[in-house]
Amino acid sequence: MADRPDDLAWLPIHRLAPRIAAREIRPPELVEACLARIAALDPHLGAFAEVYRDEARLAADEADRLIRAGRYLGSLHGIPVALKDLIEIEGRRTTCGSLLLQDRRSSITATVVTRLRAAGAIVLGKTGMVEFAYGGWGTNASLGTPRNPWDPSIHRVPGGSSSGSGVAVAAGMVTAAIGSDTGGSIRIPASLCGIVGLKPTAGRVSLYGVVPLSRTLDSIGPMTRSVEDAALLLEVMAGPDAEDPLTAAAPAADVSPVLGAGVRGMRLALLPPRDRDGVDPDVLLAFDEAVAELVRAGAQVEPLALTEPLGDYAARAGIVMAPEAYAAHRDLVEREGARMDPHVRARFLAGARVGAADYLDALDHRRGSARAFIGALAGFDAFLTPTTPIVAIPVTEVDEGALPLSRFTRAVNYLGLCALALPCGFDRQGLPVSLQIVGRPFDEATVLRVGLAFERATRWHERRPPPAPIDQPVGGVGE
Amino acid sequence: MADRPDDLAWLPIHRLAPRIAAREIRPPELVEACLARIAALDPHLGAFAEVYRDEARLAADEADRLIRAGRYLGSLHGIPVALKDLIEIEGRRTTCGSLLLQDRRSSITATVVTRLRAAGAIVLGKTGMVEFAYGGWGTNASLGTPRNPWDPSIHRVPGGSSSGSGVAVAAGMVTAAIGSDTGGSIRIPASLCGIVGLKPTAGRVSLYGVVPLSRTLDSIGPMTRSVEDAALLLEVMAGPDAEDPLTAAAPAADVSPVLGAGVRGMRLALLPPRDRDGVDPDVLLAFDEAVAELVRAGAQVEPLALTEPLGDYAARAGIVMAPEAYAAHRDLVEREGARMDPHVRARFLAGARVGAADYLDALDHRRGSARAFIGALAGFDAFLTPTTPIVAIPVTEVDEGALPLSRFTRAVNYLGLCALALPCGFDRQGLPVSLQIVGRPFDEATVLRVGLAFERATRWHERRPPPAPIDQPVGGVGE
Repeated sequence: MADRPDDLAWLPIHRLAPRIAAREIRPPELVEACLARIAALDPHLGAFAEVYRDEARLAADEADRLIRAGRYLGSLHGIPVALKDLIEIEGRRTTCGSLLLQDRRSSITATVVTRLRAAGAIVLGKTGMVEFAYGGWGTNASLGTPRNPWDPSIHRVPGGSSSGSGVAVAAGMVTAAIGSDTGGSIRIPASLCGIVGLKPTAGRVSLYGVVPLSRTLDSIGPMTRSVEDAALLLEVMAGPDAEDPLTAAAPAADVSPVLGAGVRGMRLALLPPRDRDGVDPDVLLAFDEAVAELVRAGAQVEPLALTEPLGDYAARAGIVMAPEAYAAHRDLVEREGARMDPHVRARFLAGARVGAADYLDALDHRRGSARAFIGALAGFDAFLTPTTPIVAIPVTEVDEGALPLSRFTRAVNYLGLCALALPCGFDRQGLPVSLQIVGRPFDEATVLRVGLAFERATRWHERRPPPAPIDQPVGGVGE
Repeated sequence: MADRPDDLAWLPIHRLAPRIAAREIRPPELVEACLARIAALDPHLGAFAEVYRDEARLAADEADRLIRAGRYLGSLHGIPVALKDLIEIEGRRTTCGSLLLQDRRSSITATVVTRLRAAGAIVLGKTGMVEFAYGGWGTNASLGTPRNPWDPSIHRVPGGSSSGSGVAVAAGMVTAAIGSDTGGSIRIPASLCGIVGLKPTAGRVSLYGVVPLSRTLDSIGPMTRSVEDAALLLEVMAGPDAEDPLTAAAPAADVSPVLGAGVRGMRLALLPPRDRDGVDPDVLLAFDEAVAELVRAGAQVEPLALTEPLGDYAARAGIVMAPEAYAAHRDLVEREGARMDPHVRARFLAGARVGAADYLDALDHRRGSARAFIGALAGFDAFLTPTTPIVAIPVTEVDEGALPLSRFTRAVNYLGLCALALPCGFDRQGLPVSLQIVGRPFDEATVLRVGLAFERATRWHERRPPPAPIDQPVGGVGE
């Protein structure tokens, strides 16, 4: 069965991989299909920071040669992936979305890159992001804001900070991408761009070679067009790494054995009624319908008894995040802050004003909150919320001082949990709505299992955004 | 063979335990011997904060009853121990050396107390300390400074912060004591009082129920009159505790198998020549003689190649310690600081001024220093320094703003190591000098092994301080 090149770029890994292994699809075809879409679309969408055309073509030829010689590298053999531009590759630029780092070349290669390549993946390029990953809207006043592919008529936010990764995957320019998530930076663009995003538990995936934002809140994870692909990528990315001591404490990531087991008999906790206040009614409608779908699939549901609104965790996470972010980048902020996105700079400088004792108190409070939350989750398998309380808004309506997008996502980083974001419907304008499935620390297997059951029942993830217009370039390096 | 009651109070655990097990010594005799010495001496020495006479006598009777019934609880059956007054026992006062906590009753019991009791130990009482454990001289302007037992003529400092524990053990008032050590608080009084003190690696002994000073630098450990006793107590105290997550990462504490193996063939690193500057010549003389003794016993020695003086680590440890201490006690410091020892209060308030980013930078610097130090230690089994660069000075000569005592000890906490302090001679005035044996993280077995070889070769630890005068009371609860 022959595919049109355009179809290849849309196929998920779990469909591509067996056909590459069977030599029905050749890696060069797949890479060319992606490069063609990037060339056609990225001038309008602005998702990529850099495309490694020549290197990707060479890698595809080599993948082709190997498979014909009977050597199959692993589950990602010949699969194109894009990396958020804070993941380092030796000799390559890693700008972190900042003018300040435009000329910097990486001297190391991130462990996650080594692992993806060892499994056969081909790095297609780096994707744009919020400067230093410090923002949720996806805006970047210095290097440009990628365009949300779901509205051809106006420039809507992609969500951030992994904005380019979200847009690249949603628009079918690459099979999968890697994002980072400190307060929602994988899940928010996944939500607003209508794709799947997994934020693993901190310590699950090595952060060696990933430019830090907040050392106790950061994690990196896959952004894909299906739950199955997210699971596949997690298994490649996860595991102990001597270069990141935090990974030593993680139990093994046994995802595959339970992935397809369904939700019958599961008990799922729901967003408490109080936390529904102020959420877009269309988002609530889609969320409630998603819950009903899981009930039809055999799950029991009940609101979670939390003593405080999820938004309070989000606010307190800021007291941890800001000084950690400032400590990580203080030299740049102090020396060259004038050349930074002013909103990002202001967030860093707020971190400079936090005292050590307040920071330590916040860590204590955080530990207590995590214990209390895990306690409240007793008897449940996972916790369901909308990923974001709103859908993608026009960039002209962004209030950089407000944090509505991370209201339900930040708590997950703050409390040391894992979470999956996946499409669960559309609002009346046709913009994606997303379901967040939150799990216990290191229980990625359960959130992926619930997500897969939902995805198989609904197939929301198969919807594609409308064709992009060709008359509204926003920048990008695609041509 | 009968013992005079006074002799019983001086016997080490490793001599007492087999004779208790053999019913040659009865726990009530031993406890009475200690209580008698406390009644006679503590009015002059001021080591104890509280003595649990009635409870200790009841426990001794019970220990006697059990042994006669053939039930031997463990390696500490019937052994009297004293606890630094920051270790909690439910229903008992835990003052932390502070007027501010005089009326506070503990609502929990420290894990270490539960373990000591389970092994048969009898808690004889609580010992005085520097207020909130924040000081190295052993002085306490609020509740009194215990008297160093080695000079009957004038009031010399005991060293701190575990001042009372050091004095109580040195003066033969109790068989062993438990101290805490954040920058030298076990080893400094062990040095100045001529006893053995072991600072285990952080995470080796549970800190549950121990009032914190600095969460990343604190540890608790034994203060004894022999290395063998310190090893015995460590084995009882150490191990994972669900109430202290830090203990989960510790490997098993296999001390006994190697304890008596000697030092032949060992390579021991020595204090670099530069770090000898400013050290009391008598201390250096005793240190050099100790090193020569270890060489005679078969060890090879060589100065350690360190890029910075040990005192620099000590200074940087302060940037970690001060904000952690302030965060732990800020409410008391802010509300009732006027009733605190003014020097201790000043140390806390310095912590209030440290910014979160500076604190985080200090933690980074610390990790780098620890890696570099472990690297420099490659090829060596342990690292030898004097424990303190001076001997006990008169309380009238104390400069509260200076930190000479912790110059060689703080680095051990800062770098995440373990260390043993033990007597290695006397200065020309007859005041004790101490050898510090520093080991890799969780390598208590090696420092104890080196210490035991030294102790067996020299027997410095068997010297006793001169009889105390009865005409210079400094306070205490002993009568």
